[in-house]
Amino acid sequence: MAMKLCVIAGDGIGQEVVPQAVRVLRQLLPQLQTVAADAGWETFQRSGNALPPVTLAAARDCGAVIFGAVSSPAHKVAGYRSPIVQLRRELGCHANLRPTLSLPGCGTPGIDLLIVRENTEDLYIGEEQSDGDTATAIKRITRVASQRVAASACQLAVAEGRRRLTIVHKANILPLTDGLFRDVARQVAADYPQLQVDELLVDTAALKLAQAPQAFDMLLASNLYGDILSDLAAAFGGGLGVAASLNLGEQAAIAEPVHGSAPDIAGQDIANPVASLLSLALLLRHWWQLPALDARLEQAVRATLAAGIRTPDLGGSAGTAGFCDAVLARL
Amino acid sequence: MAMKLCVIAGDGIGQEVVPQAVRVLRQLLPQLQTVAADAGWETFQRSGNALPPVTLAAARDCGAVIFGAVSSPAHKVAGYRSPIVQLRRELGCHANLRPTLSLPGCGTPGIDLLIVRENTEDLYIGEEQSDGDTATAIKRITRVASQRVAASACQLAVAEGRRRLTIVHKANILPLTDGLFRDVARQVAADYPQLQVDELLVDTAALKLAQAPQAFDMLLASNLYGDILSDLAAAFGGGLGVAASLNLGEQAAIAEPVHGSAPDIAGQDIANPVASLLSLALLLRHWWQLPALDARLEQAVRATLAAGIRTPDLGGSAGTAGFCDAVLARL
Ligand SMILES: CC(C)[C@H](C(=O)O)[C@@H](O)C(=O)O
Ligand SMILES: CC(C)[C@H](C(=O)O)[C@@H](O)C(=O)O
Repeated sequence: MAMKLCVIAGDGIGQEVVPQAVRVLRQLLPQLQTVAADAGWETFQRSGNALPPVTLAAARDCGAVIFGAVSSPAHKVAGYRSPIVQLRRELGCHANLRPTLSLPGCGTPGIDLLIVRENTEDLYIGEEQSDGDTATAIKRITRVASQRVAASACQLAVAEGRRRLTIVHKANILPLTDGLFRDVARQVAADYPQLQVDELLVDTAALKLAQAPQAFDMLLASNLYGDILSDLAAAFGGGLGVAASLNLGEQAAIAEPVHGSAPDIAGQDIANPVASLLSLALLLRHWWQLPALDARLEQAVRATLAAGIRTPDLGGSAGTAGFCDAVLARL
Repeated sequence: MAMKLCVIAGDGIGQEVVPQAVRVLRQLLPQLQTVAADAGWETFQRSGNALPPVTLAAARDCGAVIFGAVSSPAHKVAGYRSPIVQLRRELGCHANLRPTLSLPGCGTPGIDLLIVRENTEDLYIGEEQSDGDTATAIKRITRVASQRVAASACQLAVAEGRRRLTIVHKANILPLTDGLFRDVARQVAADYPQLQVDELLVDTAALKLAQAPQAFDMLLASNLYGDILSDLAAAFGGGLGVAASLNLGEQAAIAEPVHGSAPDIAGQDIANPVASLLSLALLLRHWWQLPALDARLEQAVRATLAAGIRTPDLGGSAGTAGFCDAVLARL
């Protein structure tokens, strides 16, 4: 089977970090074929579609995708829908893996946390109405999606030797929706006796994560809570410049740095490529099932950081391309 | 006018911290009349109602309320609704003030943050449905409630000399609901030229709050985001033992420590009464309009902490009652 990667750089710094990170990946996978595709705000302004059909088709065909970052409009724009949210759903990437690891000289030491975020429903289904004075949105939680993401989380836990799974919810206020998510997750997890399962209200989870991020092993959360808590966790892992994620499904996987398009620093070769590099490492491990290459890439990133080579967000003076040169030299 | 306080201790440590904090308040307000009333899980189990009509009537009559904490059932129980959520709505307490201050020897120095949380709608309206496989909840945002809480936030900002108001939302995913909240807040704030207004996505707000809580002045958030971010902020202010709040409306105000009923430490005289004391201080300032007494109470709490007198959650060995004795001695 040919190894293909659909490369969606997107807007802003996506245009810088993605090509550089892919350049590093090529050294590990010389046989890799890449297919560039457009998405994002610029694409929308040009074509009226933030995720053109040809992009979706390319992503489906490749299976593996890297999605950089996109800008979004400040207000509702007719016809605009977030391309990453669409892509996650269209490609059936039901689980969003968001690890926070302590990297050399970044953030709080001793963290090795994996947040698994449900990726297809909750308040992200886009069902909103408004008459201008009253607006409503639907939060939807289904048994099938909850089961699916819980099963992925438990399988990952076992594969990675993790021992504790903390289910996040707000069932004291949302007993039917969040209660369903929590109950289904507990049922699924009951088949994994090696896992210690507990649960936290989302507000308490935020508090405890901030007090002792090292104390957590794995969090399982619905879409919105996972969004908030993974950004929070990133604060303790060196910030968004290094926060990686993988959207994982049966038919496709999307490597996605957690950061946005950061227009304020775009075009200056100062954006941190680590988030993209580590997102590709997740793709190597979980999609292509090449853990040895994942380990090599992660080690090279660690070695580069340990050598004091850093982009400005981490207090260094390396550029995006220069950092990747240094990683290549250490692969 | 007689000064009356409706005292709802609730469950668990509510039964300890509330009476002790009220004992301190009496010294500042000897003319205070108190009316005890029941609410919570024990009350529900006894009477079938977590917020009996007689409690609601007493709270309405007094105007000023202290609500300790209540336990809640792990699963949906027919007829049970969260009494604090009901009370906030029934008493029209549309704004929830949640300050985080650096106290002597607690948490991160240099924080003086006020979170103003909308308190009546969002996902807290209790409109949920489920067929067992698909569950939905309604998130409702109205212009009128958004206006009301934004106006309160701006008035408070001016009264307290605050300069920066950060509106929190997720309008990139929820342009109609969160977009309405954001837009209305911006419109209201435009009448306060002395305020610098900006906005953050809720995920970014969590990240930035964790990175630099000192950098924020005032956050304005809808109900659920305010819930999560205020617990998060509490992590940097010394934890839930000292996190105070005031639910404020036109007809009533509810002083409410942010912590829960903490059954694991209940009945041992070790719960921290600071959250209740500082919640009463907020009542003195914002409801009874007695800023001098508020300042005296806050100073006495600070002096007690500064003297190294602390409950076990802050690494000390003082008991709930003993801590309050020490505060009384410093009033
Ligand atoms: C850009 C936005 C739609 C997205 C999300 O909310 O999922 C982002 O915050 C993320 O976490 O990947
Ligand atoms: C107990 C619960 C209903 C409540 C809330 O979510 O509002 C609590 O977390 C709080 O913040 O006061």
